[in-house]
Amino acid sequence: MELNNSFANVLKKMRQEKGLTQTEMALQSNFHRTYISQMERGLKSPTLNTLYTLANVFGISLTQLINAVEQEMQK
Amino acid sequence: MELNNSFANVLKKMRQEKGLTQTEMALQSNFHRTYISQMERGLKSPTLNTLYTLANVFGISLTQLINAVEQEMQK
Repeated sequence: MELNNSFANVLKKMRQEKGLTQTEMALQSNFHRTYISQMERGLKSPTLNTLYTLANVFGISLTQLINAVEQEMQK
Repeated sequence: MELNNSFANVLKKMRQEKGLTQTEMALQSNFHRTYISQMERGLKSPTLNTLYTLANVFGISLTQLINAVEQEMQK
């Protein structure tokens, strides 16, 4: 699977596993809900800073987040 | 260490270990030399797409690249 789509799937899955809506995710990350939505549709490639913030919201390390994306790419 | 500075250090170190100049790195990655230089000074936060391209140039996985950045942050 293509990189941004893999990231999109992982982001959506982890957000839903946390029981968060896009609006709640926006509040916790301080990103605009539109940005979350664009990333979940594979329209935006997150920056390293964004990835770090998202990993913190999910309570995992950057490496764990990226590893999940790489696993998703192999599907 | 702060995230972008950690990434900057890792990028510079891996490039030098590969024996590449910034110009050669630019050619291999298809990024502008100025962008490489800005990342190596911590002025730009790379996107996920950029990180993937850089990992490919270095012949490592995205996870390995990000893990190196996280190790650097702990210094």
